[in-house]
Amino acid sequence: MSGPLAIGVDVGGTHLRAGLVGADGRIGPLVRRPSEVAAAGPLVAAVAAAVAELDATAGRPLPVGLGVAGLVDRTGTLRYGPNVGVRDAPLGDLLTTALAGRRVRVVNDASAAVVGEHRAGAARGHDDVVLLTLGTGVGGGVIVDGRLLTGAHGFAGELGHLVIAEHGRDAPSGIPGTVEAYTSGTAIAREADEAVAAGRDGARRADAPAVVAAAAAGEQWAADVLTTVGERLGIAVASVVAVVDPSIVVIGGGAGDAAAPFLLPAARRAFAAHLLGADHRPQAALVPALLGDDAGLIGAGLLAADVDHPA
Amino acid sequence: MSGPLAIGVDVGGTHLRAGLVGADGRIGPLVRRPSEVAAAGPLVAAVAAAVAELDATAGRPLPVGLGVAGLVDRTGTLRYGPNVGVRDAPLGDLLTTALAGRRVRVVNDASAAVVGEHRAGAARGHDDVVLLTLGTGVGGGVIVDGRLLTGAHGFAGELGHLVIAEHGRDAPSGIPGTVEAYTSGTAIAREADEAVAAGRDGARRADAPAVVAAAAAGEQWAADVLTTVGERLGIAVASVVAVVDPSIVVIGGGAGDAAAPFLLPAARRAFAAHLLGADHRPQAALVPALLGDDAGLIGAGLLAADVDHPA
Repeated sequence: MSGPLAIGVDVGGTHLRAGLVGADGRIGPLVRRPSEVAAAGPLVAAVAAAVAELDATAGRPLPVGLGVAGLVDRTGTLRYGPNVGVRDAPLGDLLTTALAGRRVRVVNDASAAVVGEHRAGAARGHDDVVLLTLGTGVGGGVIVDGRLLTGAHGFAGELGHLVIAEHGRDAPSGIPGTVEAYTSGTAIAREADEAVAAGRDGARRADAPAVVAAAAAGEQWAADVLTTVGERLGIAVASVVAVVDPSIVVIGGGAGDAAAPFLLPAARRAFAAHLLGADHRPQAALVPALLGDDAGLIGAGLLAADVDHPA
Repeated sequence: MSGPLAIGVDVGGTHLRAGLVGADGRIGPLVRRPSEVAAAGPLVAAVAAAVAELDATAGRPLPVGLGVAGLVDRTGTLRYGPNVGVRDAPLGDLLTTALAGRRVRVVNDASAAVVGEHRAGAARGHDDVVLLTLGTGVGGGVIVDGRLLTGAHGFAGELGHLVIAEHGRDAPSGIPGTVEAYTSGTAIAREADEAVAAGRDGARRADAPAVVAAAAAGEQWAADVLTTVGERLGIAVASVVAVVDPSIVVIGGGAGDAAAPFLLPAARRAFAAHLLGADHRPQAALVPALLGDDAGLIGAGLLAADVDHPA
């Protein structure tokens, strides 16, 4: 176990979680504080308070990495958060001022998570990695040649927003037919509604964890719902692999972690069926994430500490 | 004008074309020889003969780059060519033997083309670039941080094979609903067939150049065909931009070059409509290619010469 390199922070819907991060993952207990990304001033104050608490444990000021949902540009400004209503919040500048003299990095939460899984989780040892996180929405992150793919403006890896069905189902982003519309936790619940509407035996309205529990209890309608979602996930994976050609694809996020045993077999079949020359090429492994909720804060901390991942 | 750095070779359906390549593009006349990629032995002999001819002009042996359609792995083996029926042809090894003592690089033709457009064409000055080539099929290439994106196995940038319509139209690859199925030159001809079947006023069976000519002559059915194809192209661009976040997207290939004035306006509208947070981010420019048929051989030559683009 190495010593702490940085402080990693993950901002959820109602709370932030912060912890010390070492090269191998997180170190010690997490600090939790109520806060939400939609209120930039209180969020920055809450981060600063959590950092002060962790400084006392570390004994010295460490770089701080913050992962948030939405489009984050290279300066750490959250330009657009479709699920939180935020526009143009300069979180990087605000945090740098609040934590004067310290290295700060603000990134998309799923970009942070792929760095976590790459350095300390399911994708350790791989140089080319794709992560999809299935939650309320679908996030994504890409590692190319061992480094986070940021793109020209910092917005690369928005894998929930590929279109897989022209004129398809609505999504919170306003873009119909996207990966998010068909494979998020929200989409799992929507498939359950459709199973009810179709009169499937035993089907009932249920959120994603309840669908997974029903499938685990042997209810066929629920297993079928997850198979349908898994097939769409496999198509999404094939599309991303066509662009990036990774050696491993990791499926995480709250809904992804719980549903992986049901989603991944269907996803692997659909992935192979939609991949060019699947029988003539090494195929990327499609595996569940290992770090759960901690992937984002671990990755954010590593990005803040890491000279290999410049902004 | 700089001196020649390499010999670039592009293999088409019935002929290969080879030429001297400098940092700014191709230099001097091209050598053409009958050959096709499906016959590896004769192809290598034809390349060697073209190289000998160009050596005489250059006065010294230069590195040789070869661009071919299909999945080319890091060793230069053409693993799978859906449009030519090739399987596992070790073109890199065969050429290295035939041209003993010389640096050889074999790559996908559209990967070569994006390097050409990046270094000497429409994307000069951009570090993050996407190219789609519309021809019989649809090829693609991606530049990240100034370097060709190759992926774990060499197969990155297969942008014709993203799925944009689940259970959609058949494609030569066998994968239904792909970008290639909706935006290739072949797809333009198929849209013309559908306009005929729909009884559109004036519509007739036509290949892609004839559709473009009809649109240029003011025939509304033909303009509508290209608008439909352009809208699908815009969706494809939005999906690739979600993954890669380039600053420029270049549309090339035989069909792309001819149809660009009709395709691109519709593509730009659909791109903006399918891009997350389009009003809150810098948007990639969507532009026609500049180098025409020469992009691939220029890029192949530059890749063979270039220490910045290791295999």
